[in-house]
Amino acid sequence: MIITVTLNAALDLTYRVPALTPHASHRVTEVTERPGGKGLNVARVLAAIGHDVTVTGFAGGDTGRTLHERLAGEPRVTDALAPVAGATRRTLAVVDATTGDTTQLNEPGPTVTPAEWAAFLDSYTELVHRAGTAAVALCGSLPPGVPVGAYALLVRAARAARVPVLLDTSGEPLRRGVAARPDIVKPNADELAELTGSHEPDRATRDARRRGAHAVVASLGADGLLAVTPDGTWRARPPERVRGNPTGAGDSAVAGLLSGLAEHLPWPDRLARAVALSAATVAAPVAGEFDPVTYDELLPRVVVAATASATT
Amino acid sequence: MIITVTLNAALDLTYRVPALTPHASHRVTEVTERPGGKGLNVARVLAAIGHDVTVTGFAGGDTGRTLHERLAGEPRVTDALAPVAGATRRTLAVVDATTGDTTQLNEPGPTVTPAEWAAFLDSYTELVHRAGTAAVALCGSLPPGVPVGAYALLVRAARAARVPVLLDTSGEPLRRGVAARPDIVKPNADELAELTGSHEPDRATRDARRRGAHAVVASLGADGLLAVTPDGTWRARPPERVRGNPTGAGDSAVAGLLSGLAEHLPWPDRLARAVALSAATVAAPVAGEFDPVTYDELLPRVVVAATASATT
Repeated sequence: MIITVTLNAALDLTYRVPALTPHASHRVTEVTERPGGKGLNVARVLAAIGHDVTVTGFAGGDTGRTLHERLAGEPRVTDALAPVAGATRRTLAVVDATTGDTTQLNEPGPTVTPAEWAAFLDSYTELVHRAGTAAVALCGSLPPGVPVGAYALLVRAARAARVPVLLDTSGEPLRRGVAARPDIVKPNADELAELTGSHEPDRATRDARRRGAHAVVASLGADGLLAVTPDGTWRARPPERVRGNPTGAGDSAVAGLLSGLAEHLPWPDRLARAVALSAATVAAPVAGEFDPVTYDELLPRVVVAATASATT
Repeated sequence: MIITVTLNAALDLTYRVPALTPHASHRVTEVTERPGGKGLNVARVLAAIGHDVTVTGFAGGDTGRTLHERLAGEPRVTDALAPVAGATRRTLAVVDATTGDTTQLNEPGPTVTPAEWAAFLDSYTELVHRAGTAAVALCGSLPPGVPVGAYALLVRAARAARVPVLLDTSGEPLRRGVAARPDIVKPNADELAELTGSHEPDRATRDARRRGAHAVVASLGADGLLAVTPDGTWRARPPERVRGNPTGAGDSAVAGLLSGLAEHLPWPDRLARAVALSAATVAAPVAGEFDPVTYDELLPRVVVAATASATT
């Protein structure tokens, strides 16, 4: 069983409008609604490729209740979201049907009280010590009220339970979390540059590893992944450029890495899976979903090359 | 007891953002959420000025459940919203904190099935025949699936029960509804022009009355109200120009007319109340609320003048 943590879970809404004009009134032609936040997206992909997942983090208010109900309908997903008095945030993507562009509006999320945070820590610690827990992913931003060093605590608790842990966040929570020595961090190019001050991926990835992560897998958009690990350094690229919507591609890459970790696959196979899932997400017609046919077709053709350039 | 009907009820969301930029990502700094749709707004104002109100129409889905819960907390409001399988729509107002402008995004609302419509008609008919029902307001747009002649049916059912009925809608539902001879229709200038083809208020108001309404009260924005009734014709104006947000001003005018009708006030007093409530709504800091101090201050100073110009 894999655990994904989404401290700032969301109800993701997508509105389609004929054309978005500021200060005008719009009739929304299509509404979609689903559980969101990075860890819940990762869980959905993990479940789709056959893994049992327990999701935790916080849920509260009317939107939190909707989240619980939706998760109850998802196969292979166990809902362990902890209660919070405030309301789970909505994120709204307004898609302009004329241009295809998306305007994003993100609510801030509930303020988590110290008592709620303490109760979550207890239930998280119990979960990571449970027999059969194969890996943990810590994903996304922190809601108001959660201490900035939250991920460092959660990394240490997982390591104390001897459960491998992947961290996918940004800014100060990433900086603090990396220092707690997670097994894998998966920054994108911007997050990596913010962490290390370097825009040069090889250099920045090596630097991120020196800060404490056992392995760093940098997601470089259409250029695929750069992995610096204790077992070696690899570049993994899709066989051809995939066009589409990159929303959720990073979450699919995390699902690929995490499932490979849980299955004890060698690094090149983990990276191939992560790149194929990520590209199949870009190619899918629905944002954040992956296309299984594209995944199966791409997986054997992902180019994984060992490289010496980033060896420390 | 007054009944308000909101066939396309809504959960009204307001997002405040520092500045709205299409195709960018925004952090929402403030979220407010409340029951909406014209009939529910009218009910809130009626309750605030001391009237017991029963609200009906449709509510369904997660948003409908939220609506029921919010209404349960409103004093003097009885919730008689009928169930619908689809989800109650959200309306979203995105307020740009830099310019103060609002961008509106309206979901379409649930599709009402013929069985749901028939069940609503039964419960509505029962409500209007209940002892103590003083007046009915039929407010707003029709959700998908409800026949375009819906308001004509509801007007006839109220009249059969000898309950006075006010209609506040637009387009074809207004055209059909007026023909069923409601006691009052309250179009704004645009709705009146669409109904009659005339942009000249005196002429258009007389024409609307010839189409079947016993009284026509046209809301002319900052110019107040023009009422053509069986008892006479009046112009009612605020004593001075009120600045602010006109959202909900029309619904407050309906509450003023309806409460005056239920209390058997003479027309000039009904109009003064409608104008004062409407202006106090424009002046209130929160969109759609009215400011009670401004209302008390304006009420005795509203200028109501009998006029011969619109006599038929």
